Amino acid sequence: MVMKLYGYFRSSAAFRVRIALNLKKLEYETAPIHLRRNDQTTADYLAVNPQGLVPTLKDGGLTLIQSLAIIEYLNETYPEPPLLPRSAADRVRVRGLAEIVACDIHPINNLRVLRYLTHSLSHDEAAIAAWYNHWIDTGFQAFEKLLAADRRTSVFCHGEAPGLADVALVPQVINAERYQLDLSPYPTITRIFQSCMRLEPFAAAHPDNQPDREA
Amino acid sequence: MVMKLYGYFRSSAAFRVRIALNLKKLEYETAPIHLRRNDQTTADYLAVNPQGLVPTLKDGGLTLIQSLAIIEYLNETYPEPPLLPRSAADRVRVRGLAEIVACDIHPINNLRVLRYLTHSLSHDEAAIAAWYNHWIDTGFQAFEKLLAADRRTSVFCHGEAPGLADVALVPQVINAERYQLDLSPYPTITRIFQSCMRLEPFAAAHPDNQPDREA
Repeated sequence: MVMKLYGYFRSSAAFRVRIALNLKKLEYETAPIHLRRNDQTTADYLAVNPQGLVPTLKDGGLTLIQSLAIIEYLNETYPEPPLLPRSAADRVRVRGLAEIVACDIHPINNLRVLRYLTHSLSHDEAAIAAWYNHWIDTGFQAFEKLLAADRRTSVFCHGEAPGLADVALVPQVINAERYQLDLSPYPTITRIFQSCMRLEPFAAAHPDNQPDREA
Repeated sequence: MVMKLYGYFRSSAAFRVRIALNLKKLEYETAPIHLRRNDQTTADYLAVNPQGLVPTLKDGGLTLIQSLAIIEYLNETYPEPPLLPRSAADRVRVRGLAEIVACDIHPINNLRVLRYLTHSLSHDEAAIAAWYNHWIDTGFQAFEKLLAADRRTSVFCHGEAPGLADVALVPQVINAERYQLDLSPYPTITRIFQSCMRLEPFAAAHPDNQPDREA
């Protein structure tokens, strides 16, 4: 039975899982959950994922939530190509980089948070854009320093092959571009982003290439 | 060389790492980073952790950041007792639960975000408290459902021994208590929290038992 990914073309957490599935050459079908139209709050979807967030991955009888947990599962279940290095000392570096994005940038800028700021706290578009870019800048400053200061940084965040840190980074760069963040302070991030986007598994996972994309 | 944990008694991310170190019976020394006094923004600390967040763990020559990445490292380096189950199907469940807290509750309520709401967006204490409890409630509703609906939930989030999901959950419950959130809608969370707090590794990691604690 082919895997099924509940996602949204613009969700960067779903984007991460799409990249991982593509890197592993795993077939999957897409179940679009239109976040702006609130598909994630239907009883049907909440029965699949009680958080009402995307992505959710169904693999046989298993229902998997949380993008990083899903990617670790894919990496354990389908080991080739590996998305984490071999040694514990290298793995913690890669996971730490991925978590800068997945814990400390993306959740603060998630749609539901922006909606709270707009609807419950009455902020306007300019305040939302400032918020959005503030958290990306804060996270990217650290991410850039950690890349630039470490000899393990190469074509990709960690060595010569893409891995979990790249999988987390790329969708966040796409989000930054959408909000027209100035990326010039982040030359290493930008270079690695470009290396990734030249690879088919990343390019095919891009929001513009999803069946549920919108202008 | 004994490990060194840069933390803050009240940081729930540092609290997670303290629990994991205690469960593994690993000795460590505490380097207090007083977040309210902005120790995390000194050049000295930014040289240790460019994110300016806690925790950071030094183990020999390694400098480790991001609490979940650190705990995975400890679990790989010091395997007993295991903080993750053996099968990929169980591991993804435990990691997913941990990430509900570590990605979708805690970062949105972090001190730096509350400060942004207060100083840049001029919100008062009541608005901050509503924000804080909203994100805990939203996350705990899903967490409770996932626990209650799954036969693998037992004395702890997953089986008869504490693991990564419990390590993430307990500090978040302590935070909820501090903001006087009504926990009665979360009987399974509350029961598991109590099971954990009866164990020395959790109790010893509590903010009140840290050398840098304040009233």
